[in-house]
Amino acid sequence: MRLLLANANTTEAITELCAAAAREAASAGTEIVPATPRFGPAVIATRAENAIAGHALLELLAEHAGQVDAVVLAVSHDTALEAARQMMPCPVVGMTEAACFTACLLGGRFGLVTFGGVETYRERIAQHGLAGRCASLVGVDATPGDAVRDPAEVERKVLAGIAQAAREGADAVVLGGAALAGMARRLRDASPVPLLDGIACAVKLAEALVALAPGRARTGSFAACEGRESVGLSPALAALLRDSA
Amino acid sequence: MRLLLANANTTEAITELCAAAAREAASAGTEIVPATPRFGPAVIATRAENAIAGHALLELLAEHAGQVDAVVLAVSHDTALEAARQMMPCPVVGMTEAACFTACLLGGRFGLVTFGGVETYRERIAQHGLAGRCASLVGVDATPGDAVRDPAEVERKVLAGIAQAAREGADAVVLGGAALAGMARRLRDASPVPLLDGIACAVKLAEALVALAPGRARTGSFAACEGRESVGLSPALAALLRDSA
Amino acid sequence: MRLLLANANTTEAITELCAAAAREAASAGTEIVPATPRFGPAVIATRAENAIAGHALLELLAEHAGQVDAVVLAVSHDTALEAARQMMPCPVVGMTEAACFTACLLGGRFGLVTFGGVETYRERIAQHGLAGRCASLVGVDATPGDAVRDPAEVERKVLAGIAQAAREGADAVVLGGAALAGMARRLRDASPVPLLDGIACAVKLAEALVALAPGRARTGSFAACEGRESVGLSPALAALLRDSA
Amino acid sequence: MRLLLANANTTEAITELCAAAAREAASAGTEIVPATPRFGPAVIATRAENAIAGHALLELLAEHAGQVDAVVLAVSHDTALEAARQMMPCPVVGMTEAACFTACLLGGRFGLVTFGGVETYRERIAQHGLAGRCASLVGVDATPGDAVRDPAEVERKVLAGIAQAAREGADAVVLGGAALAGMARRLRDASPVPLLDGIACAVKLAEALVALAPGRARTGSFAACEGRESVGLSPALAALLRDSA
Amino acid sequence: MRLLLANANTTEAITELCAAAAREAASAGTEIVPATPRFGPAVIATRAENAIAGHALLELLAEHAGQVDAVVLAVSHDTALEAARQMMPCPVVGMTEAACFTACLLGGRFGLVTFGGVETYRERIAQHGLAGRCASLVGVDATPGDAVRDPAEVERKVLAGIAQAAREGADAVVLGGAALAGMARRLRDASPVPLLDGIACAVKLAEALVALAPGRARTGSFAACEGRESVGLSPALAALLRDSA
Amino acid sequence: MRLLLANANTTEAITELCAAAAREAASAGTEIVPATPRFGPAVIATRAENAIAGHALLELLAEHAGQVDAVVLAVSHDTALEAARQMMPCPVVGMTEAACFTACLLGGRFGLVTFGGVETYRERIAQHGLAGRCASLVGVDATPGDAVRDPAEVERKVLAGIAQAAREGADAVVLGGAALAGMARRLRDASPVPLLDGIACAVKLAEALVALAPGRARTGSFAACEGRESVGLSPALAALLRDSA
Repeated sequence: MRLLLANANTTEAITELCAAAAREAASAGTEIVPATPRFGPAVIATRAENAIAGHALLELLAEHAGQVDAVVLAVSHDTALEAARQMMPCPVVGMTEAACFTACLLGGRFGLVTFGGVETYRERIAQHGLAGRCASLVGVDATPGDAVRDPAEVERKVLAGIAQAAREGADAVVLGGAALAGMARRLRDASPVPLLDGIACAVKLAEALVALAPGRARTGSFAACEGRESVGLSPALAALLRDSA
Repeated sequence: MRLLLANANTTEAITELCAAAAREAASAGTEIVPATPRFGPAVIATRAENAIAGHALLELLAEHAGQVDAVVLAVSHDTALEAARQMMPCPVVGMTEAACFTACLLGGRFGLVTFGGVETYRERIAQHGLAGRCASLVGVDATPGDAVRDPAEVERKVLAGIAQAAREGADAVVLGGAALAGMARRLRDASPVPLLDGIACAVKLAEALVALAPGRARTGSFAACEGRESVGLSPALAALLRDSA
Repeated sequence: MRLLLANANTTEAITELCAAAAREAASAGTEIVPATPRFGPAVIATRAENAIAGHALLELLAEHAGQVDAVVLAVSHDTALEAARQMMPCPVVGMTEAACFTACLLGGRFGLVTFGGVETYRERIAQHGLAGRCASLVGVDATPGDAVRDPAEVERKVLAGIAQAAREGADAVVLGGAALAGMARRLRDASPVPLLDGIACAVKLAEALVALAPGRARTGSFAACEGRESVGLSPALAALLRDSA
Repeated sequence: MRLLLANANTTEAITELCAAAAREAASAGTEIVPATPRFGPAVIATRAENAIAGHALLELLAEHAGQVDAVVLAVSHDTALEAARQMMPCPVVGMTEAACFTACLLGGRFGLVTFGGVETYRERIAQHGLAGRCASLVGVDATPGDAVRDPAEVERKVLAGIAQAAREGADAVVLGGAALAGMARRLRDASPVPLLDGIACAVKLAEALVALAPGRARTGSFAACEGRESVGLSPALAALLRDSA
Repeated sequence: MRLLLANANTTEAITELCAAAAREAASAGTEIVPATPRFGPAVIATRAENAIAGHALLELLAEHAGQVDAVVLAVSHDTALEAARQMMPCPVVGMTEAACFTACLLGGRFGLVTFGGVETYRERIAQHGLAGRCASLVGVDATPGDAVRDPAEVERKVLAGIAQAAREGADAVVLGGAALAGMARRLRDASPVPLLDGIACAVKLAEALVALAPGRARTGSFAACEGRESVGLSPALAALLRDSA
Repeated sequence: MRLLLANANTTEAITELCAAAAREAASAGTEIVPATPRFGPAVIATRAENAIAGHALLELLAEHAGQVDAVVLAVSHDTALEAARQMMPCPVVGMTEAACFTACLLGGRFGLVTFGGVETYRERIAQHGLAGRCASLVGVDATPGDAVRDPAEVERKVLAGIAQAAREGADAVVLGGAALAGMARRLRDASPVPLLDGIACAVKLAEALVALAPGRARTGSFAACEGRESVGLSPALAALLRDSA
């Protein structure tokens, strides 16, 4: 099985970090195909960047349509997830979506711990329909750069965030953000509740969807594109809009 | 006051139709500045097109940043609305958002009548936080092309949709879709409940926001972009990401 | 355009304070017509007073029916708003309703800062269908009297409340309560997020509704009164119940 | 125990109908004290009338404050219920509130069958926090007058409404509206699900609250009135605003 | 009237404590019939124990089917409540359900104070449809054993919990947990808001339901069992599954 | 990997049907261990039977604790799921839970088609927090027996139910009920939207959870049992209550 691991920002190092986490989670026989967009924000930290990255991500996916069995979106805001799901002829899974749904299988309510602000996560979780199962959103005062410079201090802060989430009712905690890929495994023993890594969860759910082969919608708002015309898009993307069945 | 009327698809005729509706609604002293994106879908009919159009729209807005007092998004899915609102140094209003909020000022629950499927409108209204005030979503079996070819028949269908919405509890009805711009005024007398045109509502709310001058967020997820780096974006858009304060 | 600015308590000073805020917000060409009820509570601070004031307010509105183009309710609980909207032959806008809906056009979630308890605001916001967009309700320990006696201290407390709301996720803050009319403008520069004044917002939205002229419901629970009989009401109110079309 | 049965409209016949239903439900030892407001709508059929009736009802209750052990509001919109509850020194129960809460004790979701429109009932049930337990709202095409003129035909329509509610998922059905007082008992055998009469339920819950004697809030928005000043109210009502502890 | 007071754990002392509280609340003429299951957990403190106790409770109820007029479940998680309600030929009321619904008749939002964790109460209240009316869940750091050993200290902690709930918006407070039966009466005078005892509330509501005699569902998921076959159940329970009409 | 496939009713034929579906879905290397409870209902069709089956299922699971890597509950009501999850030292997945969460990964809203009534599914989906993502619940007029006697006719009815769900907005459809195990694969080509089989989904999610090894909660309401005493339970179950860590 070939699994496209698509970053939505243009920073190769993040792609590589996520690809490593994906490979660790992948079953034998699953090949991870990492990919980075041609254009867009270096890192997605604002709403504007996220919207721009949506196009970049779809262009990237279109390059691989038909050549992969599933897609994992390696971007914590699940950028353009529904659009990718509708457009692509294979399953598409978002990393935060995957971790939140997996967390629901482990307890009652879950928490999410991330770097920086939490409001856009609150919105994304609500869009996933999971607001009622989210007990706590904790924004840790740290940056991806800090995680490289002083990993021990950052992990201490993340653990404090996990403890807070557990106190607020979380039975499991999602570590949100591509920059935290891989950290869940390291902190697991020190955590009072199960920890979930978005990339790992997304890889397993993508594998599951490929195995289930539930078919594709031929009607409704997730049906494939047919005959959609456009201007100025990449050839692969324009072609997919004309026919993504 | 200069008010940017930004279409999100590349079809000039839609831009013009909406600009005409905007001019009709605008106060004396409000100049409508119509604009069409450089790239993207001819018409937005799928989730993929909507995501792509988000980037196109932000690029378009960036060209006008600092030169207009407010922006009206002339696209019925309120495409990239929150991103535009965060990025631009002036108020931004979406046409469906505007009509739905205005409808709330006229009664208890509202309905929305549009061409084709309604599920993406259901999601957008929920994202606006108004699911509890939406009584009815009616998809009329007609296309924008039909509206040009046989307007009388299409208006008959839309009126039937309005009547259905009223029976289902709507105290006011939003006509959703840029292609229906201007129709509300023609059907008003025949309707059992108030009718709202997205463009007209958005123009009035944009004017109101400019007059209120409530300030801009300096914190949180709607604060201006600062120092965001990117690759391969238009100069104006890249510049705005670096500094949109 | 004549815009009735209707207080719901019997304190003229509040009517005047709100009328001043309304005049400041009104467009050229909008005449503000202030009015105070004949009977009822001096200040509305309890549920019982609010219910009584509903009748007083409707009696007051009935006196002006047909002579004004729209009504702004200058009472922070949006007292009898839906009843007034149903009864009057012109648009009616509540000040808190207006500010909350306007706040939604500026960010994701909003906060409300007021004097005293917040539970009745929580209920009112939920009735407006906006519970999901309200991040924070902050009750400042101050009274309208304090605002007169020691405005600097009260403004300091209100700013602290605004900061708390922003920390709790508010992208914009509504200053709730007729007694705070006008304060938003003074505190705007010191606030980390946009501030909204209920009276100003209501004036702008009322002007917008008059311009939009969306029609009036002829069916449903907001249709005009027809042939409703009553005992012991003011002649104008009784007449309006008999025919408010 | 003395139980005030307070109508909110000025039609004595409705007061008597409800008083009869109340007496039938009351325990031995419970005296029903029927009362009709001095002013207000003859029948409450619009939002405006309901708001006016709120004042009339509170004035009526104030006359009896201290002389009754509990109050049942014999008005299907639970008019001014929260205000009365806050103001009165004894328990206050609304008839629709009572029937809906009782219905919750009998199954999963309930339905409500009434004459005419259902939207205001939808709102009231949501304000009671019970939207999630309401499966069906059915408006029967009949009037209180019809119920007098052709009771058999009206009961046939109501039974059809009950059957519809059961099909839509109701495990119990509330008959809404003072004009239907007493009908539940007659239709019970013919109904596929339990039927609830608002007056009967309210009487039983009021008796239960008196027996439980849970105390009264000394803080929050349901605390008694203290020192509230007013103009032009009835002496009893004005006195109660000054001190309802 | 014979009212079965059914404990769901096997600790007779709890049955007796609850029976005493029930007798204190019961009307003259109501006989309290206490009962304890034959098997199951000594105390219900985990999800597994609660599920097991559900069977034990139904077996216990089946022994009394036809011999009692109503059932009160003396277990704070309202264990197997819906199942019991469906199976038994008489009304069944849960103690926490009863207290929460009663609290709704006294104010806007309620709080619940209990020993230990609150998450399962949060879920139960949501299942009752009352999440929107619950302001506060407070878990006091104490055990049933503590309440016997040092009642004064435990009551001090409970009062602190009540005060916290009131600060968080509760207009009335439910004391949750069979081990707190009877405490509400003792703390009432010291509490800023009304206090509700689950057993007392359930007794009064059960008496009310018996008096109302609203009938029984003949359709839907609360209809009686007919012809349900089973293996290895107690004779009374197996018989009731075959015919509980 | 050993995966316990636990039926909750006592009908071996259902266990075998589900085991066959599980084996078809299982990865190479996953051994399916089917199991049937010692006591309880032959088929779960009522609330009472579901509660009883909860105990039977936990007893069954306790027999296998420590000997399997994960558990799939082969019962469409996800009977005692949370209790099993809390008690067992390995992941536990419910079949309807699994299918609903999987459906969320394929589109916006999902539908569920089952035999008979849908209200208990509505409740279960709401308890899973997915009410907002459920577009349609369709109860087909057929029984498990019909599916054996006239499979073609039953499949025709199920397809009609699927089509209805799609019209009502479902982007994917869950076939609910152990008796429908395996049908999804047969109807997939004829369905306009993806079809999901609960057993297959649960097997894949259980395999994913075992691979992810996210740890176990040491705090909160899903922490293992410690020192819980009981009376009259099976030795294995009693032992697990004493220590399930």
